[in-house]
Amino acid sequence: MTERLQVGAFRLASRMTDVAPSAVREILKVAEQPEMLSFAGGLPAPELFPVEAIAEAYAQVLAEEGKQALQYGVSEGHGPLREWIAARLTQRGLATSPEQLLITHGSQQGIDLVARALLDRGDRVIVEDPTYLAALQAFSTYEVTLVPVPSDAEGMQVDGLEEVFRRERPALLYIVPEFQNPKGTSLALPRRRKLLELARRHGVPVLEDDPYGEIRFAGRAGPSLAALDSEQVIQLGTFSKTLAPGMRIGWVRAPVEVLSRLTILKQATDLHTSTLNQRAVTRLLATFDYEGHLEKLRKVYRVRADAMDQALCRAMPPGTSWTHPEGGLFLWLQLPAGIVDDAVFQAAIARGIAVVPGHPFFARGLDHGHLRLNFSNRSEALIDTGMGILGEVVGELGAAASRAVVQGVASPRPRP
Amino acid sequence: MTERLQVGAFRLASRMTDVAPSAVREILKVAEQPEMLSFAGGLPAPELFPVEAIAEAYAQVLAEEGKQALQYGVSEGHGPLREWIAARLTQRGLATSPEQLLITHGSQQGIDLVARALLDRGDRVIVEDPTYLAALQAFSTYEVTLVPVPSDAEGMQVDGLEEVFRRERPALLYIVPEFQNPKGTSLALPRRRKLLELARRHGVPVLEDDPYGEIRFAGRAGPSLAALDSEQVIQLGTFSKTLAPGMRIGWVRAPVEVLSRLTILKQATDLHTSTLNQRAVTRLLATFDYEGHLEKLRKVYRVRADAMDQALCRAMPPGTSWTHPEGGLFLWLQLPAGIVDDAVFQAAIARGIAVVPGHPFFARGLDHGHLRLNFSNRSEALIDTGMGILGEVVGELGAAASRAVVQGVASPRPRP
Repeated sequence: MTERLQVGAFRLASRMTDVAPSAVREILKVAEQPEMLSFAGGLPAPELFPVEAIAEAYAQVLAEEGKQALQYGVSEGHGPLREWIAARLTQRGLATSPEQLLITHGSQQGIDLVARALLDRGDRVIVEDPTYLAALQAFSTYEVTLVPVPSDAEGMQVDGLEEVFRRERPALLYIVPEFQNPKGTSLALPRRRKLLELARRHGVPVLEDDPYGEIRFAGRAGPSLAALDSEQVIQLGTFSKTLAPGMRIGWVRAPVEVLSRLTILKQATDLHTSTLNQRAVTRLLATFDYEGHLEKLRKVYRVRADAMDQALCRAMPPGTSWTHPEGGLFLWLQLPAGIVDDAVFQAAIARGIAVVPGHPFFARGLDHGHLRLNFSNRSEALIDTGMGILGEVVGELGAAASRAVVQGVASPRPRP
Repeated sequence: MTERLQVGAFRLASRMTDVAPSAVREILKVAEQPEMLSFAGGLPAPELFPVEAIAEAYAQVLAEEGKQALQYGVSEGHGPLREWIAARLTQRGLATSPEQLLITHGSQQGIDLVARALLDRGDRVIVEDPTYLAALQAFSTYEVTLVPVPSDAEGMQVDGLEEVFRRERPALLYIVPEFQNPKGTSLALPRRRKLLELARRHGVPVLEDDPYGEIRFAGRAGPSLAALDSEQVIQLGTFSKTLAPGMRIGWVRAPVEVLSRLTILKQATDLHTSTLNQRAVTRLLATFDYEGHLEKLRKVYRVRADAMDQALCRAMPPGTSWTHPEGGLFLWLQLPAGIVDDAVFQAAIARGIAVVPGHPFFARGLDHGHLRLNFSNRSEALIDTGMGILGEVVGELGAAASRAVVQGVASPRPRP
């Protein structure tokens, strides 16, 4: 048993011993100061929020069904919203019934509920390395051991996966197969098949997190993991990237027998997701041009991703490389050898530019050679300005590193 | 280690072994059917929701700060809302700074986050017997042992508490001191002092759940537990009973060092509470007559509580007794000896009346002699009708029980 911390009159649970304030949380506080030109947050473009249509939906719901919308609701979620999502998933190639869906408070809550339903202390959880930081945090509160599996431009490398499954006997594999955070890369179809085949053979449940799948602006969508194996996979979705995050509406799709357990946990956790927000989203989806809205979103994000790619081409010194996402919100930049992510972060902040260092996205936090760049939240002009300054910062740090090496000073890259 | 259940491809965590569908959840599904005259739910009166003022607040927020209200927000909650709540608590006698407050997704989430921060598997949690059912459920997902302490008309009996503390060495004491659910009783002031003195001496943290404190319609408020000892107590609050539950806005008040840990857990759980709902509530509180609204609410609830009391006087057979709450939503009825809560539930449902059997509110579920009655959700006329029928049902079951005793048939009350 881990020793428990005492904070004033309160003795904390063992799980709190490793729960530290997120460094990225502190970074984002600096990054989101108004004077900062930030590419740090995982923020959708607020100028594309359908604010007027949302306002109209709230007005209609409160005028026509106000008493129901403000009352307690059922834990599984608002029926018509579950029906809409089931129809949408079915249309996108994943046959789904409303009974397979639980409405959650954003898809982050889906991660938490699935972790609570499936993970005991000491369990192993397979994650792509790097992966979504807040998923790592959610898992860590269940006192599990994270087992990172390396990735490349085609997503998680599945060649060594069978050996990992044999050795670790994991309780869960967590993955964002489409435009993952932080890299923007997707899992190639042959790897999806291989991963699922191994998962079935070794009895490893798969948690597929799909916040960005609807934001594909290039290439062609393949089948989701859940579409390839509905019995082995729990899938998470959200309206945070397609409509707006501030309403906190996401969902879990799972086999009915698992979903009923998740629903009990949902009730114990927070009774149910906001009735008003669920009804307003339902109304919105019934009344406005969702497809047209998504098309606009994809078009703007494609332009911004291209703008960032081209600005990086112009600004970055040799030895820098980055991913070329076909969707989502992020690209992932590899710094020239010898340049440390934290040093870039500090120097960029001093120049009024915010980015996120890459190391917190690695399960063990040891790789200091990357940055995550968000392209969805700024205009092309600001992207151009920002990447220009970032290129200068990286160039200057590179020049300093070269001088240091020439002068025999140790490399500033921290040791693992 | 508990054996883990396998559900299809998914092996569940040990904590799920004892997580069963809530019987009350199923009861409420029956009770809330439209043709049913229900006193079962814990529902505030929807005709008193300030629907128009809420609609105006959403309209204003979306018109004037739509982009911010629909974007991601900080985990601790919207600053101006924390400031408003801090000022309100201070005004009510509990000096509070915004830094001591975390905005949660209803106060149920506060119970869950505090449990996650403080409870290890196997810990002991002291609860009043009976107490709020969904708190019992939340604690049970942390695999703790519940230690029930009996209560009477003045709340938890504190005379034996020191021995319980010595024997059990509890990690937490959970209590609803004002108009508790299901009984409607409050903890007397001398007991509050005694409880806190013992808690301090034995190092037992106290979780004070206060959803109903603002709904006092008779008698005079005493100091809350947190007001008596701010360092030993975490207090939960909510707008679910004062404004409306459908927006899911509650809060945790804790010492700053504990609050910072709860905020990290909040982030891992669901990032943050709906930005839009937080800003709309902030706007509402700044623009409408909250005090006047509360006065109206208290007045209506007092009339309904009185109506229920009087209707029960008229309708109930001898041997029945009930509590006389000075606030909140519920009263608690003790059935005549030999009459079982489930039998009353079934017979009442057959007559179109829904109530909640009392046994699920007891930590061990063994006392079958009570009903919980909600008085806030129906008009005086319907309360009169409903209690009349309920009185007939109880009278008939009592007559049947007497005949059975006379004829030598075993009492239908289940054995513990």
